[in-house]
Amino acid sequence: MAKLYVVGIGPGSREELTLRADRALQSCRVVVGYHVYTDLVREWYADKEFHTTGMTRESERCRAALALAAEGEDVALVCSGDSGIYGMAALVYELRGESDTPEVEVVPGLTAACSGGALLGAPLTRDFAVVSLSDRLTPWEAIEKRLTAAAEADLTLVLYNPASHGRPEHLRRACDVLLRTLPAERICGLVRNIGRAGEKRQLLTLGELRDTEVDMFCTVFIGCSATAVTGGALITSRGYRDV
Amino acid sequence: MAKLYVVGIGPGSREELTLRADRALQSCRVVVGYHVYTDLVREWYADKEFHTTGMTRESERCRAALALAAEGEDVALVCSGDSGIYGMAALVYELRGESDTPEVEVVPGLTAACSGGALLGAPLTRDFAVVSLSDRLTPWEAIEKRLTAAAEADLTLVLYNPASHGRPEHLRRACDVLLRTLPAERICGLVRNIGRAGEKRQLLTLGELRDTEVDMFCTVFIGCSATAVTGGALITSRGYRDV
Repeated sequence: MAKLYVVGIGPGSREELTLRADRALQSCRVVVGYHVYTDLVREWYADKEFHTTGMTRESERCRAALALAAEGEDVALVCSGDSGIYGMAALVYELRGESDTPEVEVVPGLTAACSGGALLGAPLTRDFAVVSLSDRLTPWEAIEKRLTAAAEADLTLVLYNPASHGRPEHLRRACDVLLRTLPAERICGLVRNIGRAGEKRQLLTLGELRDTEVDMFCTVFIGCSATAVTGGALITSRGYRDV
Repeated sequence: MAKLYVVGIGPGSREELTLRADRALQSCRVVVGYHVYTDLVREWYADKEFHTTGMTRESERCRAALALAAEGEDVALVCSGDSGIYGMAALVYELRGESDTPEVEVVPGLTAACSGGALLGAPLTRDFAVVSLSDRLTPWEAIEKRLTAAAEADLTLVLYNPASHGRPEHLRRACDVLLRTLPAERICGLVRNIGRAGEKRQLLTLGELRDTEVDMFCTVFIGCSATAVTGGALITSRGYRDV
């Protein structure tokens, strides 16, 4: 019986794959995905057959993967980061509906909250929220409401998709919303191209972040009240009393 | 120059290690950690020297790891899940202070939001918050405030440490707080012993969750308004319009 693996490949370096994701990819003959991610995977598993689709063609991509598995191929549908967190796994289940074929296995991967946090230090030692600034499928008002709720509840924030094609100003708008609740001196971190060529990390204040240019390969961390820079690392103290 | 790796080992099966975490562990002679996690790692890397500490001895554990690295040993300090998310990485940086020795490398791992979500299906396709129900270092009032803020902003919630020794009733108290905002029919998921012996998944309503027994090896998912059960999987629809 053929199987569709929905594989989170992590931030983009082969080293950040789990052993399970590596094994799943090795076991498949066909790999399906958005071309930016299949291009990465192609370097690591050159013997596979690749089916690539463009950006925003999510349903087409998942239908193609399901159809190939239905024809008897073991297929890996690859997602950046985790395959569940803003990934394709839910859409695969939606399109498969109440059928139990083909068999689906969701293989988790390192999401940018984990990999980007590690690059900066350890900003997520307390409660946090993950919010995407893409308003393609979510009304901007809902995004604003979530940002404000997180800031008021003193959650550290991780912002995914801080900018995308045609929406370069989303991060500035989000910072303006947060600055109604948080001080301009609040410590933040920015990571770019985690695990890939051009990897960069930056520590800055919320006020500075507002005027920083970002692209779709950036992830942003907004500290909570316990976040600070220590020894060059962005850390949120858990509050152990014997430090 | 010796190095201290703060390694997230994921949920508990060797398969869920990243290739980088595996390499870091192989490269060290000494492994430090809480005995539940060093016991797991010992099965995979039997040739290492193990230093284990008891629960709640976090500072002692990090100081021991830093001291060994300062003596010239390459050391792996192991954490379950991710090494940053409620992990030891921040405490290591705090204890090292403004010194730049020993060198510290934070090696991220799969946190339960990723691994537990994959076991249930794909509940984290929209914005979400991660909240620990442990009030050892956080006042219970702050936890209640975060739960309410997340529910009001329609964030999916992932609850870590839903119960611990001496605090079996925390999940019930949290559910009672959430039931002021969310309907008792809200779809939830519970995972136990992810990737280990005794692994279990359960789909249930928030009303049912309130009366469910949990332990410190459980992670709880509270769906948002877009969460449903499809084909046996807990999924949050991203809202693609061509499904």
